[in-house]
Amino acid sequence: MSPDELRRARAYLLRVAEPPAAALVAFVAEHGPVEAAARVRRGDCPPEVLKATEARRDYDLVDQDFGRAAAAGARLVVPEDDEWPAWPLLALEQAGRRGVSEAVPPLALWVSGDIALGTAADRAVAVVGARAATSYGEHHAAELAYGLASRGVPVFSGAAYGIDGAAHRGALAAGGVTVAVLGCAVDAGYPAGHVGLLNRIARNGGAVVSEYPPGAPPARHRFLVRNRLIAALTEGTLVVEAGRRSGARNTASTAGALGKVVMALPGPVSSGMSVGCHELIRDARATLVSTVDEVLETVGRFGIAEDQAARTQRPTDRLGPEALRTYEALTVRTDRSDSEIAAESGLPLRKVRALLPALEIDGFAVRGEAGWRRRRETA
Amino acid sequence: MSPDELRRARAYLLRVAEPPAAALVAFVAEHGPVEAAARVRRGDCPPEVLKATEARRDYDLVDQDFGRAAAAGARLVVPEDDEWPAWPLLALEQAGRRGVSEAVPPLALWVSGDIALGTAADRAVAVVGARAATSYGEHHAAELAYGLASRGVPVFSGAAYGIDGAAHRGALAAGGVTVAVLGCAVDAGYPAGHVGLLNRIARNGGAVVSEYPPGAPPARHRFLVRNRLIAALTEGTLVVEAGRRSGARNTASTAGALGKVVMALPGPVSSGMSVGCHELIRDARATLVSTVDEVLETVGRFGIAEDQAARTQRPTDRLGPEALRTYEALTVRTDRSDSEIAAESGLPLRKVRALLPALEIDGFAVRGEAGWRRRRETA
Repeated sequence: MSPDELRRARAYLLRVAEPPAAALVAFVAEHGPVEAAARVRRGDCPPEVLKATEARRDYDLVDQDFGRAAAAGARLVVPEDDEWPAWPLLALEQAGRRGVSEAVPPLALWVSGDIALGTAADRAVAVVGARAATSYGEHHAAELAYGLASRGVPVFSGAAYGIDGAAHRGALAAGGVTVAVLGCAVDAGYPAGHVGLLNRIARNGGAVVSEYPPGAPPARHRFLVRNRLIAALTEGTLVVEAGRRSGARNTASTAGALGKVVMALPGPVSSGMSVGCHELIRDARATLVSTVDEVLETVGRFGIAEDQAARTQRPTDRLGPEALRTYEALTVRTDRSDSEIAAESGLPLRKVRALLPALEIDGFAVRGEAGWRRRRETA
Repeated sequence: MSPDELRRARAYLLRVAEPPAAALVAFVAEHGPVEAAARVRRGDCPPEVLKATEARRDYDLVDQDFGRAAAAGARLVVPEDDEWPAWPLLALEQAGRRGVSEAVPPLALWVSGDIALGTAADRAVAVVGARAATSYGEHHAAELAYGLASRGVPVFSGAAYGIDGAAHRGALAAGGVTVAVLGCAVDAGYPAGHVGLLNRIARNGGAVVSEYPPGAPPARHRFLVRNRLIAALTEGTLVVEAGRRSGARNTASTAGALGKVVMALPGPVSSGMSVGCHELIRDARATLVSTVDEVLETVGRFGIAEDQAARTQRPTDRLGPEALRTYEALTVRTDRSDSEIAAESGLPLRKVRALLPALEIDGFAVRGEAGWRRRRETA
């Protein structure tokens, strides 16, 4: 399936200027991606757009980009797609109009992983922090991410060593959705020690996301530009550990500027890795959180008001207590045998055996080769 | 020196009703202590006052109270005294008028220790916390109290085991002023393990304070009533460690109700003894502080505005840098030899020997039997 004209235009535009390219994004909004790409290519555009694009406008790497992306299992998600996370990214446009610098939406995103990007970014929370984390920080990052993911909250982070990696691993351990947003291409193999982790994320119901074209190497400024996407794609950002100057604090301040919830975990005052968190809390730029419940309460309190209403209308609400326990013992990804489900749910085996076919009929469970799975649409 | 009529009347009033006795305090404000005492004694007072005083109004223990107090080295400080901390206690009257229950000023205070109570309560900070403290909490309570005391900030606390004791000890170690406000008489010998500490406080430039008459035993409700005095006598209350329910949180909420500054130290989220602090911070009832500088900044920020101005006009401001270092190597309490002062200040011995007589002439230093002391008035 070869990419259509629109997708090719956006792939070209994504490479032709270094994000965040405010003038180019405005030009695309005015003329549409196909015409904008054609005009950029022949230099027929306003001076600011010309300046941002002239160094790369003759590059013809669209076919190569799609080829390398396909090899890496990645696709280009564009604003015209149903799965585009339009609602979360709206915050970037709004902040841009308020004059927040760098608050520019991406022209498209390279995504590796089966999950629809809009689904992954639905009521998600970012868990970020220092690379030089302490074991205290890594432990709590993993615990909080585990707790959030097991309650159905997607966990976003930046795939860096330290807190980011612990957050992704915690969410994976819960069988939940986790998304890594990179400051380099999805196929850059960076950070080297996390290539396996990134593959696990993409293959286990999560996603690896980047606005940089295939092959793009990491760069310091790209991490800062990337941070705006982590902040924008989530409802709130939780800083687990941060030194006095750190990228996580940059994500936090971007989240604040975008009107998202900012949270920080406290720690021992003797720890240099909690100093940044304590400063954010002390200056009332972040709310102190210690537990998963507090994260959910904080996001709900300042976040989407219909949250509670939506929660009370979940399809599982009509299940009886034993059927619900059986359903909750299922995972989306892996088949479980009926005895595993009995052990997990704490229900007698014969009860589980009776309930599973009923759950299948009602559309909650799927019979697989090695047992039973949760039906994805209900999760 | 036998107590005058006024002091005898207040001693009687302090014993006749269990504090905080709002109706009695109002009655005393209306009629003056001497007439009020006489009328209470003969039952000639409004029903509410009668009700609060009838159980004890026939007690004639004034002579005994003064005798026991003298034996314990304590005196009665009354609102008519110059040393009465009228300004800090004004917050209680104001809060009482706003309808804050229990916000009733004391009728007098039994005080053990040479320092003038008003001086001790001048720009003081309360450092309080859990009895079942962790070593983390005790360590930081002592460090913060040490830092505050060495910068001339009196440290108030409640002399309980755990955080309170660590705070008093830290302030003592710095040679600073520390004040213990008790929920029992100054001579009750409570808590038993802190009798030595209380003696050290009273003998080393601090004070032990109580509104309970000599011999009064501790009681649960008295600690809560006492907490209002700790909150009122200080500019701000710092909670170092507190469980979910704790007396320290009671002091903090009283301080908040009195319009004083409330601060809390964060800690590991896994520590049950930091839960109370984290809740105070999370609910914006306390400002997070990690360092002595942050405590001073917080108290100054919300506290007395002339703070900074007063600080720039200290008498020591006119000392040169070496004279200041020499002066700062002196303590108020103990004589130091000139070689000890040289070691402490890091200045050559001959320099110190030249500067000390000059400091004596300018009124900053006092020559003692075993060396040199700081003159108390300049501290």
